[in-house]
Amino acid sequence: MPHSKPVTPFASETGDPFLLTPGPLTTSRTVKAAMLHDWGSRDANFVAINKSVLAQLRDIANGGDEYVTVPVQGSGTFAVEAMLTSLVPRDGKVLVLVNGAYGLRAKRILDIARRKTVVHQTAEDAPPDLKKVESILKRTPSITHVFAVHCETTSGILNPVANIGALAARYGKGFLIDSMSAFGAVPLDARAVGADAITASSNKCIEGVPGLGFVICRRAALEASQGNATTLVLDLHDQWSNFEKTGQYRFTPPTHVIVALHQALREFDEEGGVAGRGARYRNNCRVLIEGMTALGFRPLLAVDLQAPIIVTFHMLDDPRFDFQRFYDGLKERGFVIYPGKLTVADSFRIGCIGRIGEREMRAALDAVREMLQSMGVAGTSAQAA
Amino acid sequence: MPHSKPVTPFASETGDPFLLTPGPLTTSRTVKAAMLHDWGSRDANFVAINKSVLAQLRDIANGGDEYVTVPVQGSGTFAVEAMLTSLVPRDGKVLVLVNGAYGLRAKRILDIARRKTVVHQTAEDAPPDLKKVESILKRTPSITHVFAVHCETTSGILNPVANIGALAARYGKGFLIDSMSAFGAVPLDARAVGADAITASSNKCIEGVPGLGFVICRRAALEASQGNATTLVLDLHDQWSNFEKTGQYRFTPPTHVIVALHQALREFDEEGGVAGRGARYRNNCRVLIEGMTALGFRPLLAVDLQAPIIVTFHMLDDPRFDFQRFYDGLKERGFVIYPGKLTVADSFRIGCIGRIGEREMRAALDAVREMLQSMGVAGTSAQAA
Ligand SMILES: Cc1ncc(COP(=O)(O)O)c(C=O)c1O
Ligand SMILES: Cc1ncc(COP(=O)(O)O)c(C=O)c1O
Repeated sequence: MPHSKPVTPFASETGDPFLLTPGPLTTSRTVKAAMLHDWGSRDANFVAINKSVLAQLRDIANGGDEYVTVPVQGSGTFAVEAMLTSLVPRDGKVLVLVNGAYGLRAKRILDIARRKTVVHQTAEDAPPDLKKVESILKRTPSITHVFAVHCETTSGILNPVANIGALAARYGKGFLIDSMSAFGAVPLDARAVGADAITASSNKCIEGVPGLGFVICRRAALEASQGNATTLVLDLHDQWSNFEKTGQYRFTPPTHVIVALHQALREFDEEGGVAGRGARYRNNCRVLIEGMTALGFRPLLAVDLQAPIIVTFHMLDDPRFDFQRFYDGLKERGFVIYPGKLTVADSFRIGCIGRIGEREMRAALDAVREMLQSMGVAGTSAQAA
Repeated sequence: MPHSKPVTPFASETGDPFLLTPGPLTTSRTVKAAMLHDWGSRDANFVAINKSVLAQLRDIANGGDEYVTVPVQGSGTFAVEAMLTSLVPRDGKVLVLVNGAYGLRAKRILDIARRKTVVHQTAEDAPPDLKKVESILKRTPSITHVFAVHCETTSGILNPVANIGALAARYGKGFLIDSMSAFGAVPLDARAVGADAITASSNKCIEGVPGLGFVICRRAALEASQGNATTLVLDLHDQWSNFEKTGQYRFTPPTHVIVALHQALREFDEEGGVAGRGARYRNNCRVLIEGMTALGFRPLLAVDLQAPIIVTFHMLDDPRFDFQRFYDGLKERGFVIYPGKLTVADSFRIGCIGRIGEREMRAALDAVREMLQSMGVAGTSAQAA
């Protein structure tokens, strides 16, 4: 194209495009550099590193001695499945709160594992209806557990886990939380919300690399779970009791991923833990929404429902807006965004998490503006001024 | 101790001790350096890397178009469990050939998944009795599959998978192989042995880092397996059909582990594939056994049963030989060995695999000699001369 100037991409410390996605994310150079060594899985240093990682994850959830972190090799979904199939007994019944793909995935996992479920589903831009939740709990005594997604990454909505936990406690139900995309950035106090278990993974707000999930379990719930699991590798009780006995994984741990997670947790602490990390992400989110709104985009969610994790925007209602061209142009400029996963609206998503700050967010907004200009989308330059 | 000289450890390219274990292993600097970037999981380059990794793994087993590689996030055991529970139908029955811990683990996985089994167990230093295997197959028509471990890492024994495969084929049974510790170093032709599936992982003879398992499946077996699985994450059919549809993982892949595996496979090719890698390991194994024998150690296995992967040695029958001191002294000198896992004899193991060659093996033998001398074990220096 004769008029297009060569683009100088904005790039991370290691020269990569910034991943403005729900994960894997941009990590620091130092987190990746921690992987430049090989570790024996029985090595005393490695065993100590692993122990400190598990303790720190529990502390992030303010779990105290009542809770313990059980790691699960694999991606986050492996940990979700391990949590659901280990903690819900074979004759259990779970009230699954669904407002997006990850709630539906939990329902699917429970169906495959032949655990009974009751589903309360709301639209992708609406939190669960707590009155209805209560009435389901009241009229269905056979329910043993309530499952909720903390930040439903499908839309970016923050679900009210404290209120849900209070209802679960009032009706004597176990409470299981998928906090995959929020853990470490949105405060979550395991004891205060009355969680039996909280699951998350190495590669979201903790800013490690992908390859390890974990479940922070109430010890009493874990102790009671022996014999529930229907697999070997996803059996949290077995994994945990082996750690108690030997301090080691039952099966080869992803050593490099774990030392990277250890470094990521050090950097997490240096940033001031959940408060510091959350503040950076909230600022990213604010800058993003303000900038995109000025450029004519409309976020899906009302401000009070938006978690500072990932923002869903409606596609621009302009025939000249071509999403593929927009996506590719942003990529060329150093920013990877994410297609939408909504069923209700045509949308795309931009993440606020990972090793990015206001400077990167503003550069991403510049790239968005450039792309709108290059597509000749109406009103853009005025709005952006 | 007044007489001990400071030890200068022998060290890998990245300054780490050499891991003479069954894994995780010593990898090259370049394999680890491949992890110094972040990749989006939908990135076209990443998708292409992944595709080439899966094709190359299938080619190592000479699978051709009849076979396809299905990756499984997690450790090798995750892939073993995925293979067994996806390919064996719920009413299937598996003849499990056991001569060590990994055969027993497969049996345990099948028990938990409520698949029926028949076990043929031999001692840890003995291959399966093929006559007995045949008579079991003859008199038990309800058997649907035969499962064998290629190199049983418990002892280091090489099981006769070609003969077992021939029997399985003769009686019309599916054949499932755990080739975790041998894949890439011991030739294994999927079609020639008639395998329905072969499982291995990223971090053994391929010399990648841990975090990914895979199953090389006969397409026809995979196609027939829909609905067998009792989990979401370990469902090979679902994982595969998603790849066919989208070229992508269902759940976040361990991106850094996969790019390291891609680099490891490049180096594997450069070394001449299975032939080249196998030759280096066989030489490591020969140097190790000759050297250790000269120092008074006795290997567990007869030469014709020994796979060039890991060697089990009997403990020295000398009151001055202290295994913990031996282990620690070797570690201090830059070599990590492995405790025994045998039930039949008091033993330890030294691995021949990973980024090590004759030079490292000879240095390890020097360290062994030094440790024997420092413990004052009889006859050592004469034998070593
Ligand atoms: C809320 C939530 N749950 C579960 C998952 C699944 O994690 P993974 O892709 O690592 O399996 C994700 C991933 O984005 C998520 O956001
Ligand atoms: C033959 C065999 N099978 C299975 C495994 C299990 O692999 P992982 O430890 O990666 O789960 C191993 C590990 O050494 C092995 O040697």
